[in-house]
Amino acid sequence: MVRLTGGDPSLLRRINSAVVLHALRGSGPLTLTELTRSTGLSRPTVEGVVEGLMESGLVVEAAAGSADARKQGRPARRFRFHAESGHLLGVEIGVHQVRVLLADLGGRMLGSYCYPVDELLDVDTRLERVRAGVAESLRRAEVARSTLWAVGVGSPGIVEANGRVGLSTAMPGWTGLALGERLGRSFKCPVLVENDANAAALGEHWLGAARGNDDVVFVMAGLSPGAGSLIGGRLHRGFGGAAGEIGALHLLGREATPERLLSTTDRPLDPLDEVAVTRVFSLAREGDARATEAVRRFLRRLVHDVAALALALDPELVVLGGWATGLDDVVEPLRDALARYCLRPPRVALSALGEEAVATGALRLALDHVEEQLFAVDRTAAAVLR
Amino acid sequence: MVRLTGGDPSLLRRINSAVVLHALRGSGPLTLTELTRSTGLSRPTVEGVVEGLMESGLVVEAAAGSADARKQGRPARRFRFHAESGHLLGVEIGVHQVRVLLADLGGRMLGSYCYPVDELLDVDTRLERVRAGVAESLRRAEVARSTLWAVGVGSPGIVEANGRVGLSTAMPGWTGLALGERLGRSFKCPVLVENDANAAALGEHWLGAARGNDDVVFVMAGLSPGAGSLIGGRLHRGFGGAAGEIGALHLLGREATPERLLSTTDRPLDPLDEVAVTRVFSLAREGDARATEAVRRFLRRLVHDVAALALALDPELVVLGGWATGLDDVVEPLRDALARYCLRPPRVALSALGEEAVATGALRLALDHVEEQLFAVDRTAAAVLR
Repeated sequence: MVRLTGGDPSLLRRINSAVVLHALRGSGPLTLTELTRSTGLSRPTVEGVVEGLMESGLVVEAAAGSADARKQGRPARRFRFHAESGHLLGVEIGVHQVRVLLADLGGRMLGSYCYPVDELLDVDTRLERVRAGVAESLRRAEVARSTLWAVGVGSPGIVEANGRVGLSTAMPGWTGLALGERLGRSFKCPVLVENDANAAALGEHWLGAARGNDDVVFVMAGLSPGAGSLIGGRLHRGFGGAAGEIGALHLLGREATPERLLSTTDRPLDPLDEVAVTRVFSLAREGDARATEAVRRFLRRLVHDVAALALALDPELVVLGGWATGLDDVVEPLRDALARYCLRPPRVALSALGEEAVATGALRLALDHVEEQLFAVDRTAAAVLR
Repeated sequence: MVRLTGGDPSLLRRINSAVVLHALRGSGPLTLTELTRSTGLSRPTVEGVVEGLMESGLVVEAAAGSADARKQGRPARRFRFHAESGHLLGVEIGVHQVRVLLADLGGRMLGSYCYPVDELLDVDTRLERVRAGVAESLRRAEVARSTLWAVGVGSPGIVEANGRVGLSTAMPGWTGLALGERLGRSFKCPVLVENDANAAALGEHWLGAARGNDDVVFVMAGLSPGAGSLIGGRLHRGFGGAAGEIGALHLLGREATPERLLSTTDRPLDPLDEVAVTRVFSLAREGDARATEAVRRFLRRLVHDVAALALALDPELVVLGGWATGLDDVVEPLRDALARYCLRPPRVALSALGEEAVATGALRLALDHVEEQLFAVDRTAAAVLR
């Protein structure tokens, strides 16, 4: 076995802590003997590390063992990862909803709360609704704000690395907003902001339709469609954070905006009016000729946009989401078109998380951040050798 | 300093060899003292490693030092990486040409040879031309086949990880061809096969228009356009090796094939007839109305395809190549369109390597393979800790 010797002792302690936490998290409660075995660390090292982790609240002694164990007199103490010692938030700040998901440090979901908002809210009012929604959610779940370790946020637009919204046409005043910084004032923990379609891709990969698929395009269908991509299980943000912003593609075909394509009159739909969209879809289902033609036009355009993404990226799977209704009508035409035009057609699936996809991905961002801190053994160890 | 102790001694030797080679390659000739200083290894270790590397031919003693050094009596021996001890090939197997680039282990170019071939050659004849071209190139450069360490190959089509062409419409019989295996029979060293646009992206990144840009889309313009992408400096092949195969995108717009768009008659052009394409472009330059209209139609389509790629991937830079002529007419319209439709428009540049782009990238593949073997210190060391 290769060992690290010498070097920064606090770094070694950190690596050993991560190794022990990792072992505890991947299994049920363990005794010190079992931890010594599973980590390869010495007994005194394990004892020291566990003591430190208990002091910081990340490890607790598990409840007394089974009747079997109790029968044998004094059973060995067992320890477990104390996931409930901290909490995470996943927040979607959308055009029509603020959604808040709450979980513990292990990623176990503790609550999901939705607060409808008006599409025309200005920035300050919308952020006020977000703060109120978060406060209300914490109250309802009886979770103290001080136990939050990280907050993930998903929102429309190009999001820069520093949490600033570079460009967003979806909500008034969103372009140029220092969203991460503004929200950060309400939290003592890190706030991580991500484009909504990117977040949804992470969410579906974690708990939804893309579990087990590492090369995924999530299509946020809508009047201004966007997409988020995972390549090899990692988010592909693009050089400037604009990857997958295919909404502009239809502009290349003059007049072919979705608002026009999906309109049953001479006037285009309001780009944010999802109710009108739903109405067109249900009219089409009832056999209305103009609506059927409008839906047909719109689907052809959406299929084209998604095909462009699939040809560019060659994903294993395309997940369709973003809308609550009407998407089932998209799946078959999309499958047909991709089968016909892609050299290697991807699978197509509907979102499994529906309206929770973005918030779920935002939560995953927060969880990734915390896991990076707690369990990042490989990277830390690898860094030692640089 | 953290040290690796224990472990597999041959692994340690390999790491130390890589460290010494890396140091020698990154500088001029070094003395043992200088090597000891720059690697952090002990003097006896450096001596042992250098001796082993000289036996294998990878290191040689440098020619006697400067007059200065000679004046001081017996100068210290200096050692250098013996790049000339081995050779690499980069081969493009294209529709109209077989191109062979020859370099030494340091990537220094020793020769570039082009052998025109007919677009309709069957597989066996085409491969025969490749073999003859390689033999002729080695002869002209006076390089022995036995000194080849790796051969990179770029060719049209979806190339699978095992070097098989999964699908290619560009050349007769290419689909399903076990290209890597067939070529491998002529070489004792590894043969690495890659899609031509992917190879060109690597080539432009290494020595061409994309130097210093790690997020790049190389567009292989043509009647059946394709693209190769680098993300974070690494090739993005896609889940099934089909990423960037945007040639099918035009099929979504009925009848809008490039062969039709670029035709000045009622009949489409032959998809492989680049001479006809060149003629249309030069007619347009002379002011011919039908040709001008045809070029305009074609450019609009190409711009659309590239915009789709740019929106999907958000690269820093788009490099246009693949054709010797006519591409200058594409740059400005493409820049305009991307500026108008992309949320964050990429830069657009013409290929700097022209007809050598694919072969240069193929050579880079071979060089990457060899460098992986010789200098991959970080990965080897990191693997120790897994």
